[in-house]
Amino acid sequence: MANYTHLLLAIDLTEDAKRVGERAQALAAAFGAQVSVLHVIEPLSLAYGGDIPMDLSSVQDQIHEQAKGQLQEFSAALAIPEERQHLVFGRPEAEIHRIAEETGSDLIVVGSHGRHGLALLLGSTANSVLHGARCDVLAVRVGEVED
Amino acid sequence: MANYTHLLLAIDLTEDAKRVGERAQALAAAFGAQVSVLHVIEPLSLAYGGDIPMDLSSVQDQIHEQAKGQLQEFSAALAIPEERQHLVFGRPEAEIHRIAEETGSDLIVVGSHGRHGLALLLGSTANSVLHGARCDVLAVRVGEVED
Repeated sequence: MANYTHLLLAIDLTEDAKRVGERAQALAAAFGAQVSVLHVIEPLSLAYGGDIPMDLSSVQDQIHEQAKGQLQEFSAALAIPEERQHLVFGRPEAEIHRIAEETGSDLIVVGSHGRHGLALLLGSTANSVLHGARCDVLAVRVGEVED
Repeated sequence: MANYTHLLLAIDLTEDAKRVGERAQALAAAFGAQVSVLHVIEPLSLAYGGDIPMDLSSVQDQIHEQAKGQLQEFSAALAIPEERQHLVFGRPEAEIHRIAEETGSDLIVVGSHGRHGLALLLGSTANSVLHGARCDVLAVRVGEVED
C-alpha cells in the first residue's frame, strides 16, 4: 500500500503555517489519514549558545504559554483533537523525527522557503528534516523563492 | 484549493524508482492529478569535470538509448503516456525545476536516501531539488537510513 495513513504536520506558528496546514488537510482528506500537529520551541539557551547572563525561565514560560494558545487555535481550525497536538522544547529536526516515530507517522509535512545560497547556509528546517527522516517528507513551498 | 493537479515524478531508473513511482501513483489517484515522469542523464563531461581525453559521444548515445528503454518500461507500468515522458541531459536539480515549470507541475516527487553527515556532503538530489523549487517537493524515503 502506497497510501499515507498518519501525517505529522510540523509548523512554525507564523502566517506560513496556514498554507502548510491546508496542504496537510487536503492530503489527509484524500487518503483518509490522521493528522498530528507539532510545534517545536527552540530553547533560548540553544538558540543563543547558552551565553545569556540572566535567568530565562520566566521568558521561556511565557513563550510556552503563547505557543500553546496559538497551537490550540491552529489545531481547532483544522479539527485536530488535543491528544494529537504536540508542543515540545528542543532542536526542531530531532524532535520532528522523534514525534514522527512516536506517532507512527508515514509522512512529515513541513514548510519550505526554497532557500539556496547564503540563506540556505543560515539554516532551513525542511532541509534538516529531510536528512535522517525514516519516513517521507513533504516540503510545502511558502513565501517567495529567493534567487 | 490545496489539491495537487500535476505531479512531476523525477526518477533515477534504479530499483528505488519503483517505490517512488508507487507513491506518485497513489497521490495522483487520490487527487485525480496528472503525472509526468522525468529522468535526467548527467553528461559524463559534467560528472567528470570535462577532463576525459576521448570522444564520449558514442558512449553517451548508448546511455541515452538504454535510459530511453528503461523510462518507457517504467512509464508503461504506471500508464504514463509517451508525451508525458521526459528524458533530458543536464544537471538534475536544474532540469527538474525547468521541466516542473514547463509542465505546470505543482508537486515534484523524488526519492531520498535520508542521508546526513558525510554522505550528505557527497550530494543528494532530493536536497538540491528542494532548494529553489517553485512548487512543493515530496521526498519519498528509499533504501536504509544511514545513521
